[in-house]
Amino acid sequence: MDKVTELSYALDTFYFLMSGALVMWMAAGFAMLEAGLVRSKNTAEILTKNVALFAIACIMYMLMGYGIMYPGDAAVNSWWPGLNGILSKTDNDVAAVLAGGEGAPYYSTLSDFFFQVVFVATAMSIVSGAVAERMKLWSFLLFAIFMTGFIYPMQGYWKWGGGFLDGLGFNDFAGSGVVHLCGASAALAGVLLLGARKGKYGANGQVNAIPGANMPLATLGTFILWLGWFGFNGGSELKISDVGEANAVALVFVNTNMAAAGGVVAALLTARMLFGKGDLTMALNGALAGLVAITAEPLAPSPLWATLVGAIGGTIVVFSIITLDKLKIDDPVGAISVHGMVGMWGLLAVPLSNSEASFTAQLIGLGTILAWTLIASLIVWMIIKAVVGLRVSEEDEYKGVDLAECGVEAYPEFVGSRGGG
Amino acid sequence: MDKVTELSYALDTFYFLMSGALVMWMAAGFAMLEAGLVRSKNTAEILTKNVALFAIACIMYMLMGYGIMYPGDAAVNSWWPGLNGILSKTDNDVAAVLAGGEGAPYYSTLSDFFFQVVFVATAMSIVSGAVAERMKLWSFLLFAIFMTGFIYPMQGYWKWGGGFLDGLGFNDFAGSGVVHLCGASAALAGVLLLGARKGKYGANGQVNAIPGANMPLATLGTFILWLGWFGFNGGSELKISDVGEANAVALVFVNTNMAAAGGVVAALLTARMLFGKGDLTMALNGALAGLVAITAEPLAPSPLWATLVGAIGGTIVVFSIITLDKLKIDDPVGAISVHGMVGMWGLLAVPLSNSEASFTAQLIGLGTILAWTLIASLIVWMIIKAVVGLRVSEEDEYKGVDLAECGVEAYPEFVGSRGGG
Amino acid sequence: MDKVTELSYALDTFYFLMSGALVMWMAAGFAMLEAGLVRSKNTAEILTKNVALFAIACIMYMLMGYGIMYPGDAAVNSWWPGLNGILSKTDNDVAAVLAGGEGAPYYSTLSDFFFQVVFVATAMSIVSGAVAERMKLWSFLLFAIFMTGFIYPMQGYWKWGGGFLDGLGFNDFAGSGVVHLCGASAALAGVLLLGARKGKYGANGQVNAIPGANMPLATLGTFILWLGWFGFNGGSELKISDVGEANAVALVFVNTNMAAAGGVVAALLTARMLFGKGDLTMALNGALAGLVAITAEPLAPSPLWATLVGAIGGTIVVFSIITLDKLKIDDPVGAISVHGMVGMWGLLAVPLSNSEASFTAQLIGLGTILAWTLIASLIVWMIIKAVVGLRVSEEDEYKGVDLAECGVEAYPEFVGSRGGG
Repeated sequence: MDKVTELSYALDTFYFLMSGALVMWMAAGFAMLEAGLVRSKNTAEILTKNVALFAIACIMYMLMGYGIMYPGDAAVNSWWPGLNGILSKTDNDVAAVLAGGEGAPYYSTLSDFFFQVVFVATAMSIVSGAVAERMKLWSFLLFAIFMTGFIYPMQGYWKWGGGFLDGLGFNDFAGSGVVHLCGASAALAGVLLLGARKGKYGANGQVNAIPGANMPLATLGTFILWLGWFGFNGGSELKISDVGEANAVALVFVNTNMAAAGGVVAALLTARMLFGKGDLTMALNGALAGLVAITAEPLAPSPLWATLVGAIGGTIVVFSIITLDKLKIDDPVGAISVHGMVGMWGLLAVPLSNSEASFTAQLIGLGTILAWTLIASLIVWMIIKAVVGLRVSEEDEYKGVDLAECGVEAYPEFVGSRGGG
Repeated sequence: MDKVTELSYALDTFYFLMSGALVMWMAAGFAMLEAGLVRSKNTAEILTKNVALFAIACIMYMLMGYGIMYPGDAAVNSWWPGLNGILSKTDNDVAAVLAGGEGAPYYSTLSDFFFQVVFVATAMSIVSGAVAERMKLWSFLLFAIFMTGFIYPMQGYWKWGGGFLDGLGFNDFAGSGVVHLCGASAALAGVLLLGARKGKYGANGQVNAIPGANMPLATLGTFILWLGWFGFNGGSELKISDVGEANAVALVFVNTNMAAAGGVVAALLTARMLFGKGDLTMALNGALAGLVAITAEPLAPSPLWATLVGAIGGTIVVFSIITLDKLKIDDPVGAISVHGMVGMWGLLAVPLSNSEASFTAQLIGLGTILAWTLIASLIVWMIIKAVVGLRVSEEDEYKGVDLAECGVEAYPEFVGSRGGG
Repeated sequence: MDKVTELSYALDTFYFLMSGALVMWMAAGFAMLEAGLVRSKNTAEILTKNVALFAIACIMYMLMGYGIMYPGDAAVNSWWPGLNGILSKTDNDVAAVLAGGEGAPYYSTLSDFFFQVVFVATAMSIVSGAVAERMKLWSFLLFAIFMTGFIYPMQGYWKWGGGFLDGLGFNDFAGSGVVHLCGASAALAGVLLLGARKGKYGANGQVNAIPGANMPLATLGTFILWLGWFGFNGGSELKISDVGEANAVALVFVNTNMAAAGGVVAALLTARMLFGKGDLTMALNGALAGLVAITAEPLAPSPLWATLVGAIGGTIVVFSIITLDKLKIDDPVGAISVHGMVGMWGLLAVPLSNSEASFTAQLIGLGTILAWTLIASLIVWMIIKAVVGLRVSEEDEYKGVDLAECGVEAYPEFVGSRGGG
């Protein structure tokens, strides 16, 4: 039977690694989505931010974050001064695996690190879109250090590391709260301090649409995220190696897909009712909203119920984008609506399908994540604002942050004569 | 041994889910391919169509299609009025799996649904390219409902659900016929009713080339489809958990890859002979033709034979594109040639390598799929034409369907001054 | 226990196939990276090259290369005249697998072929970027035939096929030398014979920057390569089916990711010190440099050490790009720096973490691969130059190789008025 146990360990590890690879791919999805939704003059900078934040997230989570979030893990060294640990290359012992029993490891700890680290990057990617087109590159990257090394791991520990939210019965399967609401809250804090882009809101209260420069990129980004989400939610079952678990992972895949589909159709129909057209941007936001909505509980619903959860998410996101603009909260890519507003809907939808969940616990979890991330982020953003500043000069914003911050143009040969100025 | 059986079930389920994820990714491939091959003024609309048709395919197949195509499956509820069933979250029982024997389930039914549903979307994606640049968005989406909920599942049942084509000995491993010819036939029906784009065919019989706006996107789409096809064909072996099956899946991967390679080289050389240049569009169509050609039988040929099957496909596609233009059948992306003409070649090539297949059965299968899909599609397209119309106004076509149908431009900052008007 | 052995075989085969699919995806990464870094007038040609070289690599490796590199493999037929063999569809026997013991096959040979063939294509992809914007399409494809059918497999045999470099104790886990340095050496040979692009180097020694036309594409390409590298390095462990191997694969994934992260941060900071900006191109090259650097030994280092190996790679690449320009070696995409200079660093870094490796053996391996590939490639390039020529005419170079070589424009509707001429 030892060989069977080893094989089972190998399968679960492989499943973690493939899931992690899919989630890593979401970094490309956010990069393409955001690059498609900003103007061409700000595209190189947002690409730089997306590549760099992913790198920073990996390094900070290795140095501090993983130790904070999962202090008891096999691969965490305890020599790091004052904190819980840095990642080592030590993994589970064969003997411990073969011993079996309740607490025996059944997959590689490092495969778990790999899966977790790409989640951190996801949370941070949410921020980059919301503060696009006006924030200093280096201030953003400075924030990324604190967010991925401390703010995210702390609240992650409360739920997934076995902290108090977990004890309270708060349910968040793959992170509608821990990842998406957390990212959106940090983004909101940044946007509040940063202010809107020049020209977005007119003196008389009118809202000026600033269309993204490259819709195929935005669509590609959405498809990448949709694909990556199978790893995000599917991997969060954490095990696949028996009949019950394999069935569960399959149901999670199906429900994740159906929620996205529901989100697309609902957002498209809502936009048609409101604007009379088949608005592509709303269809894309609808897909992402469906995915965010189902993330808190993709295992309890039937496929039809999952479609509805996604459809409600797809409806919410359209109204949320309109509402945030009325409040002059300027979020160029709709990240706060998609990940924050719909993340909350996802958390509150859990008790509708999962009888073991309670609205009270969901509200406490929601409130805790929102309050912690918003306040901690505000503090960090304020310190950065005081020390190095958050916003580029008005002239740099007019010319585009690409030249000012990166010294590189995204499309140097293509003239932007309609709206690019 | 129970643990071994469970592990085997988990591995086959995981293999289905990964294969399905790769096929889902093909939706992004079609979106990018088609967005690259149309003009910039029609790009946002084709992106909207691709996202929306995927969502519609998932919903309709969940509500009706899967029940029609696989009426006996564990996850099919039988309460849906008048039809076979809607997808439930019920999956295989552990006891049934462990009982073993001939008919015992060896992978999750929901993982099978996930794998199947992305095939439906593939068939529907084929249609969107052929009718591009002139069809109304909502008419197209209306057709998608009927195609994915009924037309495709019906003929899918005849072959893969155990219907009469299967009984006749018709061979179609992964769907050169059931998916690709079916999609192309529905596309042809639409194109026949819709007519050519304005300006495509001159009064004196000359054919005007209308080049696609974004070749990197088209190339990306082709690579995505090439990658996704490993899931499409590789997953269609339906099992990987023993030596013989693992070898079979590996051979399918190798042959799929070699056929695509053969298609590229043949199409490139054919185009060079005809036009004197290394035509990128033909190279891309050659890759896809190779993939379509091998799809009916990727398991019987040797890798060298698979290369030849693909190469013949790559040659056919070049001549088919030229011929369709002579017939004034206007297919902006070459979908009818790639998926229809080469799909037929794929079906007829099966008996050349698989001694258990017969030309007669292949011809009956080919004819049935073509006739059923063409006639059923013609009826649905005609009803839609009568009720809401198929074609945008001449003015909207001139300005581009993006503004008329979506209210969004794909590249709002980039001026199109050569051919975009 | 037979069922367990079969299951283990199936899992390892599936792991090979998934790894191979990820590496195949790198072909799309190189295509997008290179298409983003050249000018719009040369984009269609580089896309054609990338699609065609992948096809040629697959065909030549099937016909000759695999037999040269792995002469003893089960799937190699020995009837090919004068050479070792062509790929057959014969795979391992069930009985041989179940017999077990030291040399018993534990995964499908064809899955190994699939994994290996995409490596060949990777090596060849490195060449296409370095010779971009001035080489004749068909001369390049002619070189690809020799490179993938003979030059690469020969040195691959010396290390991975059990040849003399392997006997000497040369360490190269996944190919910093065998793949990346080899590709870069062939590229260098081509560039030396081809000369720089017109206008790149001024009369007074100044270097003129020629920015790439499409930064989102280049970023997408980098993310694709980053993702694909998990298959490249992760699959090179060659086994995952027990606890020790699963842990090893997980460590390889983590270290691969950390090295890329280290490369990004180091390159970004180095560029900021040198140029004062957050240079996106350097960040992308830094990621790739980190990946190349860790490829020779991703299993021995701790994650922190892997980050440093990548960071040094990311620093080297910036200085190497500057140095090559001083030497007037014109490499439009930086491929020789990323894959050659950093590939050498990767080989020499092995003994720093792996106590079983020696600098002497690493230097011998490095020198052998470099000398063999450079000399063999020079000979082939020179023959091609003599027979059909390497370089397009000055007029074609000015107008762009797209029209001259492919007859297709990459972006026909977008006017390039700044730098595109």
